[in-house]
Amino acid sequence: MTVGGHRRSFPTRWADNDVYGHLNNTIYYAAMDSTINSWMIDNGLLDIESGAVLGVCAASSCRFAASASFPDALSLELSVGRLGNTSVTWTLAISRERDGLVLASGEFVHVFVDRETRRPVPIPVDLRAAIVEQLEVAA
Amino acid sequence: MTVGGHRRSFPTRWADNDVYGHLNNTIYYAAMDSTINSWMIDNGLLDIESGAVLGVCAASSCRFAASASFPDALSLELSVGRLGNTSVTWTLAISRERDGLVLASGEFVHVFVDRETRRPVPIPVDLRAAIVEQLEVAA
Amino acid sequence: MTVGGHRRSFPTRWADNDVYGHLNNTIYYAAMDSTINSWMIDNGLLDIESGAVLGVCAASSCRFAASASFPDALSLELSVGRLGNTSVTWTLAISRERDGLVLASGEFVHVFVDRETRRPVPIPVDLRAAIVEQLEVAA
Amino acid sequence: MTVGGHRRSFPTRWADNDVYGHLNNTIYYAAMDSTINSWMIDNGLLDIESGAVLGVCAASSCRFAASASFPDALSLELSVGRLGNTSVTWTLAISRERDGLVLASGEFVHVFVDRETRRPVPIPVDLRAAIVEQLEVAA
Repeated sequence: MTVGGHRRSFPTRWADNDVYGHLNNTIYYAAMDSTINSWMIDNGLLDIESGAVLGVCAASSCRFAASASFPDALSLELSVGRLGNTSVTWTLAISRERDGLVLASGEFVHVFVDRETRRPVPIPVDLRAAIVEQLEVAA
Repeated sequence: MTVGGHRRSFPTRWADNDVYGHLNNTIYYAAMDSTINSWMIDNGLLDIESGAVLGVCAASSCRFAASASFPDALSLELSVGRLGNTSVTWTLAISRERDGLVLASGEFVHVFVDRETRRPVPIPVDLRAAIVEQLEVAA
Repeated sequence: MTVGGHRRSFPTRWADNDVYGHLNNTIYYAAMDSTINSWMIDNGLLDIESGAVLGVCAASSCRFAASASFPDALSLELSVGRLGNTSVTWTLAISRERDGLVLASGEFVHVFVDRETRRPVPIPVDLRAAIVEQLEVAA
Repeated sequence: MTVGGHRRSFPTRWADNDVYGHLNNTIYYAAMDSTINSWMIDNGLLDIESGAVLGVCAASSCRFAASASFPDALSLELSVGRLGNTSVTWTLAISRERDGLVLASGEFVHVFVDRETRRPVPIPVDLRAAIVEQLEVAA
């Protein structure tokens, strides 16, 4: 398998536009969150209801370069900026799907915790393997 | 205790406004949902994490009379249109908090179900008692 | 062109799930809103920024038959329940995209108003024509 | 007037909780956005519909220390990390209203632009004056 980014489409909704006629900034975080979690779920790496380990958001950030509007879809490319022991720093390049206009770049830090104690635990082995195998990892 | 409605303030958010500069219609449903659930939680009638009975939404509706905008707060008055065996039809009168302008009226039907089987069960006894004691019940 | 429904996919988001692990009820209204407006925009029938006529939501309702969860996508089929003089009652059949499970059926009443006065005006001629040509109209 | 932070309550909503029973991370950005914009609106510094200058989000970030859940309200304290020529870096300390538990700290960079050209313009004089007069400014 080629090691590279994982790309996902994120269609927008009527109510995502704010009074200025553009997607509200919070939508980009929803797009990041959904892209990361759906990649994990699609790969069988996250069992929301009963998995012993949860990924919780420890930090996130986004820089905005241009704006988009419903009904545009966003396109997100997922890679990994840093693969730690108990945390992953996901990086997301966000563009407008119809023409590739660069819109934003974001980071999202997941710390993996025990569902019960909510204390950090090592990244699950299968998740670490899938990251290394499928995604570009910077560090 | 006087039998009457339960009133709750629902502040709005910047992103609640849509491109026309008014609260998007979905916000009124979020306001109803939050008013009903917070009334139950504040009265110790809903244990989200481990209660044996959940209220699930079987139907909802809203009629809109006027519009409001962030930073307006909504004011919701909760009463009960129909108190059934396994379901409650909540009715909500929604106005603009600063001047009482009537904005909308809504209905929200909760069916109570067993958390595991998700099959309907009788309305919990303490919830039924609180409704009768605290809220106006039409039927 | 065959007169029939208009079908649209509505992918869900991580945050759409509520504490019970299912899509929150407000998401179905966002799905209806987005389906109707995107159909109008895609057909050049709604100019959000400068069109003289806006569609505002006068009433909406939804009945829920089953639940779905992120990362499921919804599938919405749009038709028209009533085509009035100044209003359209849209009807939406909502199912789970991956297996067609019937989830909900909704109604959404748009009243068309003048952007400035916000008073009702006749449905624009091109919109009426597109509805009759492309969508199933019950009455 | 004492120069200090501006504090605002941000009540949460039922649907803000995600499947893990805590506020979704995007809610904190909505809270920041609403606090900043409502401070400007309450001070007559932002005319959403027709003001010549808009504040657009150029970057944002948040670090999370603990989690909260509906029906908790958040409490946000607004100050300014950097007051530039065309941009303001707002800083927000976010705690749980009922007990002051520190939840998160965020930054939100507004660049002020001309409504028509969307090109950066100097921060409006009255906004700059209000910031200096009412808020704590770090740099």
